[in-house]
Amino acid sequence: MEGYWLFLVLLVSALLLGFLSVLFALVWVFHYREGLSWDGGSAEFNWHPVLIITGFIFIQGIAIIVYRLPWTWKCSKLLIKFIHAGLNTIAMILAIVSLVAVFDFHNAKNIPNMYSLHSWIGLTAVIFYTLQLVLGFAVFLLPFAPVSLRASLMPIHIYSGLLIFATVIATALMGVTEKLIFALKTPAYSTSPPEAIFVNTLGLLIVIFGALILWMATRPHWKRPPEQNSKIQQPNGGTPEGTEEESTMTDCSNTDKSDVEFNSEAAARKRNLKLDEPIYKELKQLNVLSFAVLICREKEKCFITMYISLLFFVCQ
Amino acid sequence: MEGYWLFLVLLVSALLLGFLSVLFALVWVFHYREGLSWDGGSAEFNWHPVLIITGFIFIQGIAIIVYRLPWTWKCSKLLIKFIHAGLNTIAMILAIVSLVAVFDFHNAKNIPNMYSLHSWIGLTAVIFYTLQLVLGFAVFLLPFAPVSLRASLMPIHIYSGLLIFATVIATALMGVTEKLIFALKTPAYSTSPPEAIFVNTLGLLIVIFGALILWMATRPHWKRPPEQNSKIQQPNGGTPEGTEEESTMTDCSNTDKSDVEFNSEAAARKRNLKLDEPIYKELKQLNVLSFAVLICREKEKCFITMYISLLFFVCQ
Repeated sequence: MEGYWLFLVLLVSALLLGFLSVLFALVWVFHYREGLSWDGGSAEFNWHPVLIITGFIFIQGIAIIVYRLPWTWKCSKLLIKFIHAGLNTIAMILAIVSLVAVFDFHNAKNIPNMYSLHSWIGLTAVIFYTLQLVLGFAVFLLPFAPVSLRASLMPIHIYSGLLIFATVIATALMGVTEKLIFALKTPAYSTSPPEAIFVNTLGLLIVIFGALILWMATRPHWKRPPEQNSKIQQPNGGTPEGTEEESTMTDCSNTDKSDVEFNSEAAARKRNLKLDEPIYKELKQLNVLSFAVLICREKEKCFITMYISLLFFVCQ
Repeated sequence: MEGYWLFLVLLVSALLLGFLSVLFALVWVFHYREGLSWDGGSAEFNWHPVLIITGFIFIQGIAIIVYRLPWTWKCSKLLIKFIHAGLNTIAMILAIVSLVAVFDFHNAKNIPNMYSLHSWIGLTAVIFYTLQLVLGFAVFLLPFAPVSLRASLMPIHIYSGLLIFATVIATALMGVTEKLIFALKTPAYSTSPPEAIFVNTLGLLIVIFGALILWMATRPHWKRPPEQNSKIQQPNGGTPEGTEEESTMTDCSNTDKSDVEFNSEAAARKRNLKLDEPIYKELKQLNVLSFAVLICREKEKCFITMYISLLFFVCQ
């Protein structure tokens, strides 16, 4: 991998920033605010920033770059797809729970819902995120979508993923701003008490985390190399780009290929799909639950059972 | 151009959304707020949203996609570079004036400066935007930077440009949130008065404008084609990628090439630069003012005098 050490430094930095953001969110609600509970009070509201930062920012960020981790390149693409979808499903569930917390809090306190720009854009982001996940699952994971549909939807999937991630971060910044103005009265936000400085810093951490994830996700030389698969999947010497196209990862050059080299992509994909056919054939005769069992039959793939079981919330 | 009509539809939509955003900002300050003036009062503050939305969002957005306009592909790349830099300079000046307005207003009203997350991220964005402009001018417009430096900085220039644009939009959304909470008291923001709905809609317009710009800027098949230049600039049959690399436009596949095909890029660039040499040779002996005159000697390039004269604020 070209620039492996730089990638590693950025990845470790992103992970540290992500963990630090979650830690800052916890310190915010436990040290400066009312902690966490589910009683309709402020402590129930506090689940909102904690779950959004943990799930909708940190876990979504990791889901975006999971294809880039070089030590996963020896795993099958299908496995990585499941991890990508699984992480995004966890993020979606945490985001939905965080919305329930804030609606519950508003209703208990007779505060109107959905009046702020934060709520408008936030709810739109959750809806689009869910759509993206369901469409991604149907088109790129299940074996029913024709190759041409996959190829034409891939650039949109990639772009939407990055746009939603950026929008979620922007919405979180609006939320932080709102909360600090509403919560800090004596002393006021404008007098920069320690909580204001602390939570502003949390906002900066989130922005830098997002910037690192977007940088790693859009570097063409850090994408999952097709050669790793082609060794096994392309004994006939076909071009390896077909495997690339299936990636749910964010990759500009993928987009390029899907537009320019569509015909050769389609041909290459048809060849590659042959190797996945047994698993897909079985899938066609099974429901999603049995598909999980099928995946777990392969010993080395068992650790993704957790993700797949979470997928059931959406698919069953 | 592949997908020309779709590009045109998106461009017209982006322009309409951009104009509509500026119009909404003006209606906000004139119809719902205190209008515009420069007296230390709220009407001076109002310059802040108007200038940010006009310059830092709308004009910056246009500057990002100026390379993609197919009717500019017959113009020289140097001319488009000047338009790109000129529009960004206008955006920077408007952003700085808008900062002066808000600092002036705060000082007149004894409101602390730089306490909010909005101000922290906003000032950081203006500083990075200015750095990006100065570095871009020095590296990609002036003829002194070595080819290797240009090639290695191009991916960073592209990524930073898009990241700053997205960050500016996120900051604007925070600013809108702040202003609505502070300004709407009777009736409160939470009761969704007409101004709240109107300005929330302005926020949505800005987000959709940003999404369209980012989509157009990152489609590989809508990039300025190298063939247009290569007809004139590459009579020796050299690969045309060298002209691509010079682009200050946002392009993923450019980045790819700069990393992967660096050596051939460098060779191709050296050939291409020969055609620009007369203008660069003169530049070396002239100051920036004379350079503007030099550019304007060519009749068809006169319409950029406006941009160049604005550049003097930075360069003299």
